[in-house]
Amino acid sequence: MGPGPSDVHPRVSAALGAPTVGHLDPYFLKVMTETQEMLRRVFCTQNQLTLAVSGTGSAGMETCVVNLIEPGDRMVVCVNGVFGGRMADVAGRAGAEVTVIEQPYGQVFPTEQVAEAVQRVRPKVVGIVQAETSTGAWQPLEEISKVVHEAGALLLVDAVTSLGGVPVEVDAWNIDAIYSGTQKCLSCPPGLSPVSFSPRAVEVISTRKTKVASWYLDMNMVKNYWGQDRAYHHTAPINMNYALREALAIVLDEGLPARHARHLRNHKALKAGLLAMGLGYANAEGFQLPQLNPVTIPSGVDDASVRKQLLEEFGIEVGGGLGPMKGKVWRIGLMGETSQPRNVLLVLAALEKCLVERGYKCPPGAGTVAASAAYGAM
Amino acid sequence: MGPGPSDVHPRVSAALGAPTVGHLDPYFLKVMTETQEMLRRVFCTQNQLTLAVSGTGSAGMETCVVNLIEPGDRMVVCVNGVFGGRMADVAGRAGAEVTVIEQPYGQVFPTEQVAEAVQRVRPKVVGIVQAETSTGAWQPLEEISKVVHEAGALLLVDAVTSLGGVPVEVDAWNIDAIYSGTQKCLSCPPGLSPVSFSPRAVEVISTRKTKVASWYLDMNMVKNYWGQDRAYHHTAPINMNYALREALAIVLDEGLPARHARHLRNHKALKAGLLAMGLGYANAEGFQLPQLNPVTIPSGVDDASVRKQLLEEFGIEVGGGLGPMKGKVWRIGLMGETSQPRNVLLVLAALEKCLVERGYKCPPGAGTVAASAAYGAM
Repeated sequence: MGPGPSDVHPRVSAALGAPTVGHLDPYFLKVMTETQEMLRRVFCTQNQLTLAVSGTGSAGMETCVVNLIEPGDRMVVCVNGVFGGRMADVAGRAGAEVTVIEQPYGQVFPTEQVAEAVQRVRPKVVGIVQAETSTGAWQPLEEISKVVHEAGALLLVDAVTSLGGVPVEVDAWNIDAIYSGTQKCLSCPPGLSPVSFSPRAVEVISTRKTKVASWYLDMNMVKNYWGQDRAYHHTAPINMNYALREALAIVLDEGLPARHARHLRNHKALKAGLLAMGLGYANAEGFQLPQLNPVTIPSGVDDASVRKQLLEEFGIEVGGGLGPMKGKVWRIGLMGETSQPRNVLLVLAALEKCLVERGYKCPPGAGTVAASAAYGAM
Repeated sequence: MGPGPSDVHPRVSAALGAPTVGHLDPYFLKVMTETQEMLRRVFCTQNQLTLAVSGTGSAGMETCVVNLIEPGDRMVVCVNGVFGGRMADVAGRAGAEVTVIEQPYGQVFPTEQVAEAVQRVRPKVVGIVQAETSTGAWQPLEEISKVVHEAGALLLVDAVTSLGGVPVEVDAWNIDAIYSGTQKCLSCPPGLSPVSFSPRAVEVISTRKTKVASWYLDMNMVKNYWGQDRAYHHTAPINMNYALREALAIVLDEGLPARHARHLRNHKALKAGLLAMGLGYANAEGFQLPQLNPVTIPSGVDDASVRKQLLEEFGIEVGGGLGPMKGKVWRIGLMGETSQPRNVLLVLAALEKCLVERGYKCPPGAGTVAASAAYGAM
């Protein structure tokens, strides 16, 4: 119940342990094609260049940045948490002239702020995080996409924690490059990063003047392995791709609307329980991700010892805070398979025990009672 | 029986499918520590900075290059196959002034040629491939390491296909940076790249003037996650690390000398069989890797149709040639779990059937009889 990895379905574990075939075996090529088709459905896109990068989410971030950016290109990066900050770092290493715009941790960007920046900077690329894993902030993208494109820029989106948990509409929102991770709301172990590039982004990548800084992540070559040519580039993580295919099949069996509704339902119950216990959220009301709940730690309660007790006594992992939120929040994840009523009730009851033992006052059973009532009312 | 992935032991498959925990879970930190200890034993090194990069072998190559090279640094790359060529490409992207020295595919580098190059170029780094997966050439390193270090350079070695199959003595041979893959002679699925850096290389990395071009592969940060600090960097591929730990335990249970002897024994039997069938090797006698056997395709025999028949009729994958060897050689892998007498006899018998059906003349049963006799004589 941390900020990922989330729980893995037994079907995915079984797929992971299946016999390894070669990376050019006809069977594996079929796995790749099926994975791409399902990724397009999950990303809500027709983008041809949609595939799983052979690394975890941060490798997906690097893939998007280093393929779009050439040395000297201007990029605006929206930083309201650790992962926006990471994107700015990656962009600088790729040689971009980076302009950072900021919001405090837990807040989101108003459209006007992005509009002002793109008109001032006239960047090639604007990078923004849809679901800030460090804060649980849920960034709306539709209006921002319009102002980015009006200024002639490309929109690059971090969807590591959003994909499979909340709507991610790549085509409808006109997103040019997007990356995610497998271990969040897709409920697959970490190891791959789904990415998708719009035709416009592909055009930019294929007409670069300089080579992509990373050979491993160079989409001009990777796309020939995932495309019709099947030209050998690198050895893909075979078994991880089996697992991703199975995880995507489970996502699509459930259906995206049902899956998003489930994430929202369990979030509402958890939130009702936490509020009834007198606990608050550390991010902006109205922009809270269902799958990542940043709970403000009550004053006088020690962060690490509570997390240790949750883990050792109940087998529950919750995340600590990052950056300025370190020691000040717990991050409770309800991602993919982990987003279940049984986990909501358990974490509330377990947290109450840990807090009461540390002298925190709350009405006995308030959390689970409020959560149950919330489920009943939905 | 291709150039990797090799067969996976059931213990490794089971480890891969075990429940996923968090990347900062105490259990996973223990897995990381145990993996590092076993990697040091397999690499024959005391190097503190020894770990598994979160990507496949090519990511390991890129890790070694981009961490050691700053823009403008001189690097000599020894190219006698596809993977040496790849290293030169990676080095160029990292901003190195690359000097390539060459040998034909299938040949190795004499010490004098490397000595001449390092004295002429005075490079910061010399990159060389111990086991060229594209040709099966087995490059001796001890003498070359001496001339590289006499010239004040660092030695970077590609051990993707060698580790676990033939001796790799990082400390005894004074190697400064080395990378491997999991899916060759370690018999783990692809997805991670074991790397090791000497204290001298660590010093070079930690005193860089510029940031490492790749955030994902920046050892200055990655080492804090794998080291005492356990500082979060990226989410490691948890289950792949379970699998690698199990695969390394199997390697060490067998013992490196016994494992190397097994690879050699099965190679000798395969070679005896192939020669008895009138087939030849496409690499230099005396420098042939036991785990990768490049067989010259007889004239008039079609490459692809034989490989297709082997796969469809017998479930045997063999590799095609790469670069100038495309269409001219088959690469028969005897790596890790795949290096077994049953596979040697099967591939010889199956290959004979495929060849005879295409009009190739050889004494009936010559391959398996010669291989069996070779085993009997060992």
